[in-house]
Amino acid sequence: MDKKDENEYITVKKSENFSEWYSQVIIKSGFVDHSEVSGCLVFRPSAYGAWQIVVGAIDKLFREDGIENVYFPLLIPEKFLRKEQEHLEGFSPEVAWVTQTGDTELEERLAIRPTSETIMYASYSKWIRSWRDLPMRYNQWNNVLRWEFKHPTPFIRSREFLWNEGHTVFATEKEAYAEGEVILGIYNKVLLEYLALPGIPGKKTDKEKFAGALESHSIEHIMPDGWAIQGPDWHFDGQNFAKAFDIKFLDKEGKTQYAWQNTFAISTRELGVMVSVHGDDKGLVLPPRVAYIQVVIVPIYKKDNQGKVNEYAESVFKRIRKEFRARMDHRDGYSPGFKFNEWEMKGVPIRIEIGERDMAKDMAVLALRDTGEKKEVKVEDIAKTLAAELDAMHARMLAKAEKFLKDNTHHAGSYEELKRILKEKGGIVGAPWCGSRKCEDKVKDEIGAKITNIPYHQKKEDKKCVVCGEKADSLANFARSY
Amino acid sequence: MDKKDENEYITVKKSENFSEWYSQVIIKSGFVDHSEVSGCLVFRPSAYGAWQIVVGAIDKLFREDGIENVYFPLLIPEKFLRKEQEHLEGFSPEVAWVTQTGDTELEERLAIRPTSETIMYASYSKWIRSWRDLPMRYNQWNNVLRWEFKHPTPFIRSREFLWNEGHTVFATEKEAYAEGEVILGIYNKVLLEYLALPGIPGKKTDKEKFAGALESHSIEHIMPDGWAIQGPDWHFDGQNFAKAFDIKFLDKEGKTQYAWQNTFAISTRELGVMVSVHGDDKGLVLPPRVAYIQVVIVPIYKKDNQGKVNEYAESVFKRIRKEFRARMDHRDGYSPGFKFNEWEMKGVPIRIEIGERDMAKDMAVLALRDTGEKKEVKVEDIAKTLAAELDAMHARMLAKAEKFLKDNTHHAGSYEELKRILKEKGGIVGAPWCGSRKCEDKVKDEIGAKITNIPYHQKKEDKKCVVCGEKADSLANFARSY
Repeated sequence: MDKKDENEYITVKKSENFSEWYSQVIIKSGFVDHSEVSGCLVFRPSAYGAWQIVVGAIDKLFREDGIENVYFPLLIPEKFLRKEQEHLEGFSPEVAWVTQTGDTELEERLAIRPTSETIMYASYSKWIRSWRDLPMRYNQWNNVLRWEFKHPTPFIRSREFLWNEGHTVFATEKEAYAEGEVILGIYNKVLLEYLALPGIPGKKTDKEKFAGALESHSIEHIMPDGWAIQGPDWHFDGQNFAKAFDIKFLDKEGKTQYAWQNTFAISTRELGVMVSVHGDDKGLVLPPRVAYIQVVIVPIYKKDNQGKVNEYAESVFKRIRKEFRARMDHRDGYSPGFKFNEWEMKGVPIRIEIGERDMAKDMAVLALRDTGEKKEVKVEDIAKTLAAELDAMHARMLAKAEKFLKDNTHHAGSYEELKRILKEKGGIVGAPWCGSRKCEDKVKDEIGAKITNIPYHQKKEDKKCVVCGEKADSLANFARSY
Repeated sequence: MDKKDENEYITVKKSENFSEWYSQVIIKSGFVDHSEVSGCLVFRPSAYGAWQIVVGAIDKLFREDGIENVYFPLLIPEKFLRKEQEHLEGFSPEVAWVTQTGDTELEERLAIRPTSETIMYASYSKWIRSWRDLPMRYNQWNNVLRWEFKHPTPFIRSREFLWNEGHTVFATEKEAYAEGEVILGIYNKVLLEYLALPGIPGKKTDKEKFAGALESHSIEHIMPDGWAIQGPDWHFDGQNFAKAFDIKFLDKEGKTQYAWQNTFAISTRELGVMVSVHGDDKGLVLPPRVAYIQVVIVPIYKKDNQGKVNEYAESVFKRIRKEFRARMDHRDGYSPGFKFNEWEMKGVPIRIEIGERDMAKDMAVLALRDTGEKKEVKVEDIAKTLAAELDAMHARMLAKAEKFLKDNTHHAGSYEELKRILKEKGGIVGAPWCGSRKCEDKVKDEIGAKITNIPYHQKKEDKKCVVCGEKADSLANFARSY
């Protein structure tokens, strides 16, 4: 037997070398490719297709809630970035600057947006005059660039990524704050219902909050290597940007007031989390609702029955192709085994195998990507069966991901325990924390873990900070984090 | 009476000063706004919403035809741009260059994509190995930047714009060429069915073709000022880029061949054409299928019946809000006249007026944006009536635009006639042309008109070139063109 081509399988186990597994799986499965510009990915149809479905789902929920889409320029004048000092300091080390157009040097450098607060708020300041103009709940779906100097990891730390950036304006603090729960609820719903990705929602610490915001809130995931990773977030900006950008309105009493603002985002990073959480040693395992190809039909024939089997397989394909994202694999010259392997690596949820014996019984064999199980099913009911199997697979993948999250969420009652769990098990560890930056920094310095967030819905308990022993405000979630 | 606020109406007539009318209408209607970066627009919800609908319609037809979406990086290494000489010369004067990231100078400049052939084809060259990999029909929806130095006009000549760029690869010339008709058919269908914009399809001359292509084909519109404007296009690249980027495949016989390629695009420029063709002296007139708000309800009340009328109007709103993009204008403190004017300027297709007398009869008044006509209709049937009225309005707007196109498409049998028509009437003038660059240049130099395209489906006639008197190959369409 020939040596197998290394491009055709993943050479390491996910449990043994997650980072190498990840690097291989995203490329070999044809999900993405590297480009010549380090940190900038090529999204192939499977990756872009999943993102397009996520965008569609969130966009629909946003609109139903009254959020409106806009599009602002890619390029931001440097002077805008300089308006909010904390924001500038947070982003300027990562900004890609346009300095020339054609052969001409620009008088003022233009930043490729790392995020669009500054250019949007300059317009908001012109547009908003009275309480009647509020709320203004604008969102854009676009590409942003952050030239991070840390080692780029596809999706997880990409220099260019796709996202939504919501930038909303309200007349009152209360309305602005109330929007946050709605937004995180929408993100969470789509993560669960489409990507089968659970997470832990909570509030960021002051240290970890967004540059320029009063509060940041996030949904945090856990990766297979036990490191945490931040998912979508919502930032309560208060009146910080309103003051920097002069976003004022006349209230009902005719008094001028600064507006209250939010910012929120979900990015293509979630595709990296999806690949990581669900994938296995054979490659991608795509959640059925975002899978680019949900069902692939592989006819199994020999020379003497090829025509007959192909024709039958084609008739099955016709039954399902309108209802599902289906593909017929009629490539000649590849063995069924080769094809099975390829579609498994690509993460296609269901493979339908059809041979002459199946034909004779009007049956087909379904192979389920997540469990590897095979099922003989009636061709007559195949569309109904597929719909049910895809839903069941989604539910299984979500349950498995939830179990993983739960199994890797721990509790520590002391500093030693926090240290030991993070060292031995990883994951996210909840521990009482006094709320001080000093204790937060100490954990970072000594254990290498940060506070991912302070989870919502805590029981009020009388606990002591595991770091300093003072009264603990709340349970904070500590983790080594991407 | 107070002087009317100039922001609340268009101060010039479209027929008298089209360019000023256009500048006013896109801003005052809240369709777009200028940004601090010259030539880069802010798309407000009405503009972005129309684009999102166009994208959705085209994307669906593309997918049904087997085209797949991908996403390539925004930034292109300079060396890629240098690979195809003609392409480089065509684009490099307009490229925005990233030279710094954070505080660091880049070793190689990175171009913000003016179009993505070069970065995509570098990947295609890696991905395509055998005839089995073909056709590869990839498309992306993205933003591009072309730093043109001519005076920017919103949508019409914007430095940043949104578009699709299809880049497909075939094994044979025949397959590649055949795709062109399908693509232009899809563009034309969506232009007609959504934007109510007719155009003239045809082939570009060598002079006017895309930098790097063998042939370019376009759909051309006529603007209200009689100038032509190029709409969507398809470029038959032949093997030019395949040779520059080494896109080769093993054919069924095991022979290495260069692939055949196409490129095609439609951009947000169409929104500018839509505004121009359909708008009137009151402002925007949005085609119903892309109108951000299709129906607005304006309750008409006095102090003593305000509650009652509002409640009734709200009940009408509830009947229609699921089926239509509807808005209830319950703003207090503005007169009905003020509101009518505002929604007319914004181009909302149908306004529903409801007062106490209408209520009593269970009737409402529809005001149709395109004709100004008012109709009394039964509230009971209102959803059905609105659907029919919106369809009828679309049909009227399309018929009107088609008549305009026809009325402004002329024929010239001699050079003098060509000159006279272009001078006196403008529009597009078909005239026999020998096919030489010399004659094409002469018309450009002496009359200021170019060949927009050579329309399809010509009768073969024995004519002489209006410029040189030699045998004419075909009828070419001449026009002054944006």
